[in-house]
Amino acid sequence: MKSTALEKITVPTLLLDEHRCRANIRKMSEKAAGSGTFFRPHFKTHQSLTIGRWFKEEGVTAITVSSLEMAAYFAPEWDDITVAFPINILEIDRINRLAGSIRMNVLVEHTESLSFLAEHLTAPVGYFIKVDVGYGRTGISPQDHDRIDGLLTFASSSNLNFKGFLAHAGHTYGCRSAAAILAIHEQSRATMITLKERYQARFPELIISLGDTPSCSVAKDFAGMDEIRPGNFVFYDLTQARIGSNTTDQIAVAMACPIVARHPERNELVIYGGGVHLSKDRMEGEPEGTVFGRVVRQEENGWGELIPGMYLRSLSQEHGIVKGPIAEIEQYQVGDLLLVLPVHSCMAANAMKRYLTLEGEWLTRL
Amino acid sequence: MKSTALEKITVPTLLLDEHRCRANIRKMSEKAAGSGTFFRPHFKTHQSLTIGRWFKEEGVTAITVSSLEMAAYFAPEWDDITVAFPINILEIDRINRLAGSIRMNVLVEHTESLSFLAEHLTAPVGYFIKVDVGYGRTGISPQDHDRIDGLLTFASSSNLNFKGFLAHAGHTYGCRSAAAILAIHEQSRATMITLKERYQARFPELIISLGDTPSCSVAKDFAGMDEIRPGNFVFYDLTQARIGSNTTDQIAVAMACPIVARHPERNELVIYGGGVHLSKDRMEGEPEGTVFGRVVRQEENGWGELIPGMYLRSLSQEHGIVKGPIAEIEQYQVGDLLLVLPVHSCMAANAMKRYLTLEGEWLTRL
Repeated sequence: MKSTALEKITVPTLLLDEHRCRANIRKMSEKAAGSGTFFRPHFKTHQSLTIGRWFKEEGVTAITVSSLEMAAYFAPEWDDITVAFPINILEIDRINRLAGSIRMNVLVEHTESLSFLAEHLTAPVGYFIKVDVGYGRTGISPQDHDRIDGLLTFASSSNLNFKGFLAHAGHTYGCRSAAAILAIHEQSRATMITLKERYQARFPELIISLGDTPSCSVAKDFAGMDEIRPGNFVFYDLTQARIGSNTTDQIAVAMACPIVARHPERNELVIYGGGVHLSKDRMEGEPEGTVFGRVVRQEENGWGELIPGMYLRSLSQEHGIVKGPIAEIEQYQVGDLLLVLPVHSCMAANAMKRYLTLEGEWLTRL
Repeated sequence: MKSTALEKITVPTLLLDEHRCRANIRKMSEKAAGSGTFFRPHFKTHQSLTIGRWFKEEGVTAITVSSLEMAAYFAPEWDDITVAFPINILEIDRINRLAGSIRMNVLVEHTESLSFLAEHLTAPVGYFIKVDVGYGRTGISPQDHDRIDGLLTFASSSNLNFKGFLAHAGHTYGCRSAAAILAIHEQSRATMITLKERYQARFPELIISLGDTPSCSVAKDFAGMDEIRPGNFVFYDLTQARIGSNTTDQIAVAMACPIVARHPERNELVIYGGGVHLSKDRMEGEPEGTVFGRVVRQEENGWGELIPGMYLRSLSQEHGIVKGPIAEIEQYQVGDLLLVLPVHSCMAANAMKRYLTLEGEWLTRL
């Protein structure tokens, strides 16, 4: 790694490989463009205005976020934002401030929320009906036409514009193969297309919005989908690699952690880097058992391959315990840095307040 | 709850019950004083100058933290700080700045780290030898006298002062009964007293420092221990309640989360409150399976008892899924607040940037 970046690191630091990150952005943008699908990437993973500009360079004009706080952060540079989270009516003041300055879409699944918005909105907002395509977290059944019709009665309220149907097939995260992801994806797509066909005559402009990172990474094209909203692909991570979304060499972030103790008698190192940095997200059922991160080899221009069998076996608040082959463990001294690929890059990025590029530049975020 | 506090809440907010918190502080302070043991509470749980002042009111004069960043935050109000984390030599500049302004103790287990400090320190620092009493995370074996003697060769270096032996019996967190905690505690105490007896003639001032929250909560007194450093007890949490450290009515923090969707057809509510607020810490093997938090009843002056069978079954980045008896689920509407006791209060507090007291006052933290 270039010494300018390395020399700045004294505490756990999230390294960002701009080259890999831009390649991930470009690949997804081109796939969307090739399919004639509108690309509205989810920005909850990186939460950074600077990285957002890299999307603009690829022609992206609209984004997705998961909180009104994020929408407010991005609003100075993005005019078209979907808040892909069930609308929180307690934040009506913030909703109105945002709706007065940008084009904003929200997600609804309850008539109570729409009634409240119809009464309190002071500026126009688009709304998507959140549909549950099988994940079972939020959204209404695509077969519940009575409920959908109830939500559509607000389509002509002043300040409320019905935009279409939106779903998140988060159950793809439980897959372990590209074929399993594609099977869910095809089912979700068919469900959404059926919905569109049913309501299109009444709402000719309605769109269907779909597209988690596993589906969007594995699918060859997005035929029939009006809009996709993947987010994690900007960095990818070990969880996505395990389910088949990416190869590990596409992962664009790594946590650089100072080594603070050595325990070769049990093939372990102790790093400054814990749950407050990487989050407590884990992968269970790995060959080694439960894994909280994996170690990569440091290279002059960043990092290279995974070191086989070298992984984080546990995390405390500030400590991480790294286990590995003794020949690898013995190469590290107290005061060296160790580079860890995260299990879940969204959560690790959220825990850190900034990124350090391999060129030594700090990027801030929300 | 008093309306002044409630009315301020529009997003996930960590509520702090000052009365419970002060009672927890007082009880532990009195137990230490009654045992003639020096009380050096760990501040990594609350990380707040304001809450720190509540300790001062109970006579506390010295603290423990788990990073140099925390030490720097508390240094303006605390003159005597132990950084209970294996010393990170990459932060030598910060170490020297702190050592020049407060009395600071650090933890060491490697002669390489001591050599580095001996060469680079510009102000005096106390050092504890970190001993592993069975947890297996950091520290050296208490039987490894050669290694201890090696670390003691620096005891007379300029700017390095040997303070004693320090241990953290973190394996008490694996216990499920007070008897099991006490058994570990007695073993740890015996180990540390043996060490003290061996080296006391050579270092008459040396102290032994021990005392995790489970041990300190369950033990009737701290006879034979020079210093204790519990931290989590300031708030307690569900994990500590499960292992027998506290009752649930001693838990001093609760996350207030807006309800954003209702799914009575599967006995569920969706809250705005996810892994970025509560952390992904979990309790496995509960009657309901894996639990990420439990719901308490809202009362006029705060919160009351746990609602039986009402718990967080999963957490995403921003969402939480609450499951419970249908009679309870049906009492909540979209836009209501739901109050959740955290599985791990240290991690939840770390994820949030401030506390809201039941009196409606915001307390800031690091």
